[in-house]
Amino acid sequence: MRQIILASASPRRRELLEQIGVSFEVCPAKGAEIITKEQPDEIVKELAGQKAREVASMITSYGQRHEELVTPQDLMVIGADTVVAKEGEIFGKPEDEADAYRMLASLSGGMHEVYTGVSILLVSASGRVGEICFAECTRVFMRAMDDQEIRRYIATGEPFDKAGAYGIQGKCAIYIDKIDGDYNNVVGLPVAAIYRELKRVGIDLYV
Amino acid sequence: MRQIILASASPRRRELLEQIGVSFEVCPAKGAEIITKEQPDEIVKELAGQKAREVASMITSYGQRHEELVTPQDLMVIGADTVVAKEGEIFGKPEDEADAYRMLASLSGGMHEVYTGVSILLVSASGRVGEICFAECTRVFMRAMDDQEIRRYIATGEPFDKAGAYGIQGKCAIYIDKIDGDYNNVVGLPVAAIYRELKRVGIDLYV
Repeated sequence: MRQIILASASPRRRELLEQIGVSFEVCPAKGAEIITKEQPDEIVKELAGQKAREVASMITSYGQRHEELVTPQDLMVIGADTVVAKEGEIFGKPEDEADAYRMLASLSGGMHEVYTGVSILLVSASGRVGEICFAECTRVFMRAMDDQEIRRYIATGEPFDKAGAYGIQGKCAIYIDKIDGDYNNVVGLPVAAIYRELKRVGIDLYV
Repeated sequence: MRQIILASASPRRRELLEQIGVSFEVCPAKGAEIITKEQPDEIVKELAGQKAREVASMITSYGQRHEELVTPQDLMVIGADTVVAKEGEIFGKPEDEADAYRMLASLSGGMHEVYTGVSILLVSASGRVGEICFAECTRVFMRAMDDQEIRRYIATGEPFDKAGAYGIQGKCAIYIDKIDGDYNNVVGLPVAAIYRELKRVGIDLYV
Protein backbone atom coordinates (compact mmCIF):
# COMPACT_ATOMS: atom_id res chain seq x y z
CA MET A 1 0.00 0.00 0.00
CA ARG A 2 1.21 3.46 -0.91
CA GLN A 3 0.40 6.76 0.73
CA ILE A 4 -0.08 9.69 -1.67
CA ILE A 5 0.55 13.23 -0.42
CA LEU A 6 -0.38 16.35 -2.38
CA ALA A 7 2.16 19.04 -1.46
CA SER A 8 -0.14 21.91 -2.41
CA ALA A 9 -2.74 24.10 -0.71
CA SER A 10 -4.60 24.67 -3.99
CA PRO A 11 -8.24 23.56 -3.74
CA ARG A 12 -8.28 23.09 -7.53
CA ARG A 13 -5.42 20.57 -7.44
CA ARG A 14 -7.17 18.72 -4.63
CA GLU A 15 -10.41 18.62 -6.63
CA LEU A 16 -8.61 17.20 -9.67
CA LEU A 17 -7.10 14.31 -7.69
CA GLU A 18 -10.53 13.69 -6.14
CA GLN A 19 -12.14 13.80 -9.60
CA ILE A 20 -10.00 10.91 -10.84
CA GLY A 21 -10.73 8.88 -7.71
CA VAL A 22 -7.29 8.81 -6.08
CA SER A 23 -7.01 8.50 -2.28
CA PHE A 24 -4.55 11.04 -0.90
CA GLU A 25 -3.79 13.48 1.89
CA VAL A 26 -2.92 17.15 1.61
CA CYS A 27 0.22 18.57 3.19
CA PRO A 28 1.02 21.99 1.69
CA ALA A 29 4.61 23.17 1.33
CA LYS A 30 5.27 26.47 3.11
CA GLY A 31 8.89 27.25 2.23
CA ALA A 32 10.20 30.18 0.23
CA GLU A 33 10.17 29.66 -3.52
CA ILE A 34 13.65 30.12 -4.97
CA ILE A 35 13.83 30.70 -8.72
CA THR A 36 17.18 30.22 -10.46
CA LYS A 37 15.85 29.39 -13.94
CA GLU A 38 14.57 31.64 -16.70
CA GLN A 39 12.42 29.51 -19.02
CA PRO A 40 8.83 28.89 -17.83
CA ASP A 41 9.07 25.09 -18.16
CA GLU A 42 12.29 25.09 -16.11
CA ILE A 43 10.85 27.45 -13.49
CA VAL A 44 7.74 25.35 -12.81
CA LYS A 45 9.77 22.13 -12.59
CA GLU A 46 12.15 23.81 -10.14
CA LEU A 47 9.35 25.11 -7.92
CA ALA A 48 7.38 21.84 -8.05
CA GLY A 49 10.53 20.01 -6.96
CA GLN A 50 11.11 22.38 -4.05
CA LYS A 51 7.55 21.86 -2.79
CA ALA A 52 7.70 18.07 -3.09
CA ARG A 53 11.12 17.84 -1.40
CA GLU A 54 10.11 20.14 1.46
CA VAL A 55 7.03 18.06 2.27
CA ALA A 56 8.76 14.70 1.78
CA SER A 57 11.60 15.65 4.12
CA MET A 58 9.16 17.04 6.69
CA ILE A 59 7.16 13.80 6.69
CA THR A 60 10.11 11.42 6.73
CA SER A 61 12.10 13.29 9.40
CA TYR A 62 8.95 13.46 11.52
CA GLY A 63 8.72 9.72 11.08
CA GLN A 64 12.31 9.29 12.26
CA ARG A 65 11.82 11.40 15.39
CA HIS A 66 8.60 9.66 16.41
CA GLU A 67 9.36 6.07 15.72
CA GLU A 68 5.87 4.88 16.46
CA LEU A 69 4.60 6.95 13.52
CA VAL A 70 6.86 5.38 10.92
CA THR A 71 4.71 3.16 8.74
CA PRO A 72 5.85 0.46 6.34
CA GLN A 73 4.07 2.29 3.52
CA ASP A 74 5.73 3.61 0.42
CA LEU A 75 5.21 7.32 0.05
CA MET A 76 4.41 9.36 -3.08
CA VAL A 77 4.65 13.14 -2.72
CA ILE A 78 3.27 15.26 -5.57
CA GLY A 79 4.40 18.88 -5.92
CA ALA A 80 3.16 21.21 -8.67
CA ASP A 81 3.53 24.80 -9.79
CA THR A 82 1.78 26.75 -12.56
CA VAL A 83 2.71 29.92 -14.44
CA VAL A 84 1.32 31.76 -17.44
CA ALA A 85 3.68 32.97 -20.17
CA LYS A 86 3.07 35.38 -23.02
CA GLU A 87 5.71 36.69 -25.37
CA GLY A 88 8.57 36.16 -22.95
CA GLU A 89 6.78 37.60 -19.92
CA ILE A 90 5.86 35.29 -17.05
CA PHE A 91 2.76 35.86 -14.93
CA GLY A 92 2.31 34.37 -11.48
CA LYS A 93 -0.50 35.41 -9.12
CA PRO A 94 -1.45 39.12 -9.30
CA GLU A 95 -0.43 41.32 -6.38
CA ASP A 96 -3.50 43.54 -6.42
CA GLU A 97 -6.38 44.74 -8.58
CA ALA A 98 -4.17 46.90 -10.81
CA ASP A 99 -1.82 43.96 -11.38
CA ALA A 100 -4.78 41.70 -12.24
CA TYR A 101 -6.02 44.32 -14.72
CA ARG A 102 -2.58 44.53 -16.32
CA MET A 103 -2.36 40.75 -16.72
CA LEU A 104 -5.89 40.31 -18.12
CA ALA A 105 -5.45 43.23 -20.55
CA SER A 106 -2.22 41.63 -21.73
CA LEU A 107 -3.77 38.16 -22.20
CA SER A 108 -6.99 39.48 -23.77
CA GLY A 109 -7.45 38.85 -27.49
CA GLY A 110 -4.51 36.53 -28.03
CA MET A 111 -2.74 33.26 -27.31
CA HIS A 112 -0.67 32.52 -24.23
CA GLU A 113 0.89 29.43 -22.72
CA VAL A 114 0.19 27.82 -19.38
CA TYR A 115 2.96 25.68 -17.87
CA THR A 116 2.48 23.33 -14.96
CA GLY A 117 5.51 21.60 -13.52
CA VAL A 118 5.07 18.37 -11.60
CA SER A 119 7.51 16.65 -9.28
CA ILE A 120 6.61 13.21 -7.97
CA LEU A 121 8.89 11.97 -5.19
CA LEU A 122 8.76 8.24 -4.60
CA VAL A 123 10.03 7.32 -1.12
CA SER A 124 10.10 3.61 -0.39
CA ALA A 125 9.63 2.25 3.11
CA SER A 126 13.33 1.35 3.07
CA GLY A 127 14.27 4.99 2.39
CA ARG A 128 15.16 4.83 -1.30
CA VAL A 129 14.04 7.98 -3.17
CA GLY A 130 13.19 8.43 -6.84
CA GLU A 131 11.83 11.45 -8.66
CA ILE A 132 9.69 11.92 -11.74
CA CYS A 133 9.72 15.51 -12.93
CA PHE A 134 8.16 17.08 -16.02
CA ALA A 135 6.41 20.19 -17.30
CA GLU A 136 3.30 20.26 -19.47
CA CYS A 137 2.33 23.17 -21.72
CA THR A 138 -1.15 24.14 -22.93
CA ARG A 139 -1.86 26.94 -25.38
CA VAL A 140 -4.88 29.08 -24.43
CA PHE A 141 -6.68 31.39 -26.88
CA MET A 142 -8.50 34.18 -25.08
CA ARG A 143 -11.21 36.28 -26.66
CA ALA A 144 -10.78 40.06 -26.58
CA MET A 145 -12.19 41.40 -23.29
CA ASP A 146 -13.29 45.03 -23.21
CA ASP A 147 -12.69 47.33 -20.25
CA GLN A 148 -16.10 46.62 -18.73
CA GLU A 149 -15.61 42.85 -19.03
CA ILE A 150 -12.18 42.96 -17.37
CA ARG A 151 -13.54 45.06 -14.48
CA ARG A 152 -16.58 42.82 -14.10
CA TYR A 153 -14.35 39.76 -14.00
CA ILE A 154 -11.98 41.28 -11.43
CA ALA A 155 -15.04 42.15 -9.29
CA THR A 156 -15.82 38.41 -8.99
CA GLY A 157 -12.68 38.11 -6.86
CA GLU A 158 -11.49 35.11 -8.87
CA PRO A 159 -8.20 36.54 -10.19
CA PHE A 160 -6.36 36.97 -6.91
CA ASP A 161 -5.11 33.49 -6.12
CA LYS A 162 -4.51 32.39 -9.71
CA ALA A 163 -1.54 32.51 -12.07
CA GLY A 164 -2.29 34.94 -14.90
CA ALA A 165 -5.21 36.40 -12.88
CA TYR A 166 -7.88 34.07 -14.27
CA GLY A 167 -9.54 30.72 -13.63
CA ILE A 168 -10.48 28.76 -16.73
CA GLN A 169 -12.69 26.60 -14.50
CA GLY A 170 -14.53 29.64 -13.15
CA LYS A 171 -16.28 32.68 -14.56
CA CYS A 172 -13.47 33.36 -17.03
CA ALA A 173 -14.67 30.34 -19.04
CA ILE A 174 -16.81 32.62 -21.23
CA TYR A 175 -13.68 34.36 -22.53
CA ILE A 176 -11.75 31.22 -23.49
CA ASP A 177 -12.34 30.54 -27.18
CA LYS A 178 -10.26 27.37 -27.33
CA ILE A 179 -7.26 25.56 -25.94
CA ASP A 180 -4.67 23.34 -27.56
CA GLY A 181 -3.43 20.81 -25.01
CA ASP A 182 -4.57 19.47 -21.65
CA TYR A 183 -7.35 21.44 -19.88
CA ASN A 184 -6.48 20.19 -16.40
CA ASN A 185 -2.95 21.46 -16.92
CA VAL A 186 -4.44 24.98 -17.11
CA VAL A 187 -6.52 24.32 -13.99
CA GLY A 188 -3.26 23.40 -12.23
CA LEU A 189 -2.60 19.65 -12.29
CA PRO A 190 -2.13 17.57 -15.47
CA VAL A 191 -3.63 14.35 -14.10
CA ALA A 192 -3.41 12.57 -17.46
CA ALA A 193 0.34 13.18 -17.64
CA ILE A 194 0.78 12.12 -14.00
CA TYR A 195 -1.05 8.84 -14.65
CA ARG A 196 0.89 8.30 -17.90
CA GLU A 197 4.36 9.06 -16.50
CA LEU A 198 3.80 6.78 -13.50
CA LYS A 199 2.52 3.99 -15.75
CA ARG A 200 5.65 4.37 -17.88
CA VAL A 201 7.79 3.36 -14.87
CA GLY A 202 5.41 0.55 -13.89
CA ILE A 203 3.39 2.32 -11.19
CA ASP A 204 -0.41 2.16 -11.19
CA LEU A 205 -1.81 5.28 -9.47
CA TYR A 206 -4.80 3.27 -8.27
CA VAL A 207 -3.02 0.31 -6.69
CA MET B 1 -35.49 41.47 -16.66
CA ARG B 2 -35.13 38.23 -18.58
CA GLN B 3 -35.89 34.71 -17.42
CA ILE B 4 -33.41 32.07 -18.60
CA ILE B 5 -34.56 28.45 -18.90
CA LEU B 6 -32.20 25.54 -19.48
CA ALA B 7 -34.15 22.92 -21.47
CA SER B 8 -31.95 20.03 -20.34
CA ALA B 9 -31.87 17.52 -17.50
CA SER B 10 -28.08 17.21 -17.69
CA PRO B 11 -26.44 18.05 -14.33
CA ARG B 12 -23.24 18.94 -16.21
CA ARG B 13 -24.97 21.61 -18.30
CA ARG B 14 -26.57 23.02 -15.15
CA GLU B 15 -23.17 23.13 -13.42
CA LEU B 16 -21.62 25.01 -16.36
CA LEU B 17 -24.29 27.74 -16.29
CA GLU B 18 -23.85 27.95 -12.51
CA GLN B 19 -20.07 28.15 -12.94
CA ILE B 20 -20.32 31.29 -15.06
CA GLY B 21 -22.72 32.90 -12.59
CA VAL B 22 -25.92 32.99 -14.66
CA SER B 23 -29.33 32.89 -12.91
CA PHE B 24 -31.62 30.37 -14.57
CA GLU B 25 -34.22 27.67 -14.06
CA VAL B 26 -34.21 24.12 -15.35
CA CYS B 27 -37.11 22.72 -17.36
CA PRO B 28 -36.04 19.56 -19.22
CA ALA B 29 -37.53 18.67 -22.59
CA LYS B 30 -39.20 15.24 -22.61
CA GLY B 31 -40.30 14.81 -26.23
CA ALA B 32 -39.09 12.22 -28.71
CA GLU B 33 -35.93 13.16 -30.57
CA ILE B 34 -36.49 13.09 -34.31
CA ILE B 35 -33.35 12.97 -36.45
CA THR B 36 -33.67 13.87 -40.14
CA LYS B 37 -30.07 14.99 -40.72
CA GLU B 38 -26.88 12.99 -41.29
CA GLN B 39 -23.95 15.25 -40.42
CA PRO B 40 -23.12 15.48 -36.70
CA ASP B 41 -23.21 19.30 -36.63
CA GLU B 42 -26.64 19.28 -38.31
CA ILE B 43 -27.96 16.54 -36.00
CA VAL B 44 -27.03 18.34 -32.77
CA LYS B 45 -28.49 21.64 -34.01
CA GLU B 46 -31.71 19.84 -34.98
CA LEU B 47 -32.05 18.11 -31.58
CA ALA B 48 -31.11 21.24 -29.62
CA GLY B 49 -33.81 23.15 -31.52
CA GLN B 50 -36.43 20.48 -30.78
CA LYS B 51 -35.67 20.62 -27.06
CA ALA B 52 -35.73 24.43 -26.89
CA ARG B 53 -38.97 24.68 -28.90
CA GLU B 54 -40.73 22.00 -26.83
CA VAL B 55 -39.93 23.76 -23.56
CA ALA B 56 -40.65 27.25 -24.90
CA SER B 57 -44.06 26.23 -26.21
CA MET B 58 -44.85 24.38 -22.97
CA ILE B 59 -44.03 27.46 -20.91
CA THR B 60 -45.79 29.99 -23.11
CA SER B 61 -48.95 27.90 -23.62
CA TYR B 62 -49.04 27.29 -19.87
CA GLY B 63 -48.83 31.03 -19.45
CA GLN B 64 -51.74 31.50 -21.86
CA ARG B 65 -53.99 29.01 -20.05
CA HIS B 66 -53.28 30.40 -16.60
CA GLU B 67 -53.36 34.09 -17.21
CA GLU B 68 -52.24 35.02 -13.74
CA LEU B 69 -48.93 33.24 -14.37
CA VAL B 70 -48.01 35.21 -17.47
CA THR B 71 -45.16 37.51 -16.54
CA PRO B 72 -43.96 40.59 -18.41
CA GLN B 73 -40.49 39.03 -18.59
CA ASP B 74 -38.66 38.21 -21.74
CA LEU B 75 -37.79 34.54 -21.92
CA MET B 76 -34.60 32.85 -23.10
CA VAL B 77 -34.76 29.08 -23.55
CA ILE B 78 -31.48 27.22 -24.09
CA GLY B 79 -31.53 23.74 -25.64
CA ALA B 80 -28.39 21.68 -26.27
CA ASP B 81 -27.41 18.27 -27.59
CA THR B 82 -24.02 16.54 -27.76
CA VAL B 83 -22.71 13.68 -29.89
CA VAL B 84 -19.31 12.11 -30.46
CA ALA B 85 -18.15 11.38 -34.02
CA LYS B 86 -15.27 9.29 -35.26
CA GLU B 87 -14.57 8.41 -38.88
CA GLY B 88 -18.18 8.84 -39.99
CA GLU B 89 -19.70 6.96 -37.06
CA ILE B 90 -21.79 8.88 -34.52
CA PHE B 91 -21.94 7.85 -30.87
CA GLY B 92 -24.73 8.90 -28.52
CA LYS B 93 -25.19 7.41 -25.04
CA PRO B 94 -24.30 3.71 -24.76
CA GLU B 95 -27.17 1.25 -24.37
CA ASP B 96 -25.38 -1.13 -22.05
CA GLU B 97 -21.97 -2.28 -20.85
CA ALA B 98 -21.09 -4.00 -24.13
CA ASP B 99 -22.02 -0.89 -26.08
CA ALA B 100 -19.88 1.26 -23.76
CA TYR B 101 -16.96 -1.14 -24.28
CA ARG B 102 -17.39 -0.93 -28.06
CA MET B 103 -17.41 2.88 -28.01
CA LEU B 104 -14.41 3.24 -25.68
CA ALA B 105 -12.39 0.66 -27.66
CA SER B 106 -13.19 2.60 -30.81
CA LEU B 107 -12.19 5.99 -29.35
CA SER B 108 -9.08 4.64 -27.58
CA GLY B 109 -5.73 5.66 -29.04
CA GLY B 110 -6.96 8.23 -31.55
CA MET B 111 -8.70 11.51 -32.29
CA HIS B 112 -12.45 12.02 -32.36
CA GLU B 113 -14.75 15.00 -32.57
CA VAL B 114 -17.33 16.17 -30.06
CA TYR B 115 -20.18 18.30 -31.37
CA THR B 116 -22.57 20.26 -29.19
CA GLY B 117 -25.49 22.00 -30.83
CA VAL B 118 -27.11 24.96 -29.09
CA SER B 119 -30.48 26.53 -29.78
CA ILE B 120 -31.33 29.75 -27.94
CA LEU B 121 -34.96 30.79 -28.29
CA LEU B 122 -35.67 34.42 -27.43
CA VAL B 123 -39.33 34.97 -26.63
CA SER B 124 -40.24 38.57 -25.88
CA ALA B 125 -43.08 39.47 -23.51
CA SER B 126 -45.04 40.62 -26.56
CA GLY B 127 -44.69 37.15 -28.14
CA ARG B 128 -42.03 37.81 -30.76
CA VAL B 129 -39.67 34.82 -31.15
CA GLY B 130 -36.07 34.76 -32.36
CA GLU B 131 -33.60 31.88 -32.51
CA ILE B 132 -29.83 31.66 -32.34
CA CYS B 133 -28.60 28.23 -33.38
CA PHE B 134 -25.07 26.95 -33.83
CA ALA B 135 -22.86 23.89 -33.37
CA GLU B 136 -19.38 23.88 -31.88
CA CYS B 137 -16.77 21.18 -32.55
CA THR B 138 -13.85 20.14 -30.32
CA ARG B 139 -11.21 17.59 -31.32
CA VAL B 140 -10.29 15.17 -28.51
CA PHE B 141 -7.11 13.05 -28.52
CA MET B 142 -7.52 9.96 -26.37
CA ARG B 143 -4.62 7.87 -25.14
CA ALA B 144 -4.67 4.14 -25.90
CA MET B 145 -6.62 2.36 -23.15
CA ASP B 146 -5.89 -1.33 -22.60
CA ASP B 147 -8.59 -3.90 -21.84
CA GLN B 148 -8.12 -3.60 -18.07
CA GLU B 149 -8.36 0.18 -18.21
CA ILE B 150 -11.56 0.13 -20.28
CA ARG B 151 -13.17 -2.38 -17.87
CA ARG B 152 -12.03 -0.40 -14.84
CA TYR B 153 -13.48 2.78 -16.33
CA ILE B 154 -16.82 1.14 -17.17
CA ALA B 155 -16.97 -0.18 -13.58
CA THR B 156 -17.04 3.44 -12.32
CA GLY B 157 -20.52 3.70 -13.86
CA GLU B 158 -19.64 6.98 -15.55
CA PRO B 159 -20.15 5.91 -19.21
CA PHE B 160 -23.88 5.24 -19.12
CA ASP B 161 -25.42 8.69 -19.36
CA LYS B 162 -22.76 10.23 -21.60
CA ALA B 163 -22.33 10.57 -25.35
CA GLY B 164 -19.37 8.44 -26.46
CA ALA B 165 -19.44 6.57 -23.10
CA TYR B 166 -17.03 8.86 -21.29
CA GLY B 167 -16.91 12.00 -19.17
CA ILE B 168 -13.91 14.25 -19.74
CA GLN B 169 -14.80 15.99 -16.47
CA GLY B 170 -14.77 12.70 -14.55
CA LYS B 171 -12.44 9.73 -14.16
CA CYS B 172 -11.79 9.52 -17.91
CA ALA B 173 -9.65 12.67 -17.57
CA ILE B 174 -6.53 10.52 -17.14
CA TYR B 175 -6.95 9.15 -20.67
CA ILE B 176 -7.35 12.49 -22.46
CA ASP B 177 -3.96 13.55 -23.77
CA LYS B 178 -5.11 16.86 -25.24
CA ILE B 179 -7.99 18.67 -26.86
CA ASP B 180 -8.11 21.22 -29.64
CA GLY B 181 -11.09 23.51 -29.10
CA ASP B 182 -13.43 24.38 -26.22
CA TYR B 183 -13.35 22.05 -23.19
CA ASN B 184 -16.84 22.95 -21.98
CA ASN B 185 -18.18 21.98 -25.39
CA VAL B 186 -16.99 18.43 -24.63
CA VAL B 187 -18.60 18.57 -21.17
CA GLY B 188 -21.87 19.50 -22.93
CA LEU B 189 -22.41 23.26 -23.09
CA PRO B 190 -20.08 25.71 -24.88
CA VAL B 191 -20.67 28.66 -22.54
CA ALA B 192 -18.04 30.83 -24.26
CA ALA B 193 -19.83 30.48 -27.61
CA ILE B 194 -23.22 31.13 -25.99
CA TYR B 195 -21.91 34.34 -24.38
CA ARG B 196 -20.20 35.38 -27.64
CA GLU B 197 -23.18 34.69 -29.95
CA LEU B 198 -25.57 36.56 -27.66
CA LYS B 199 -23.17 39.50 -27.42
CA ARG B 200 -22.97 39.60 -31.22
CA VAL B 201 -26.72 40.37 -31.36
CA GLY B 202 -26.50 42.89 -28.53
CA ILE B 203 -27.61 40.70 -25.62
CA ASP B 204 -25.62 40.60 -22.37
CA LEU B 205 -26.14 37.23 -20.67
CA TYR B 206 -25.71 38.89 -17.27
CA VAL B 207 -28.20 41.77 -17.63
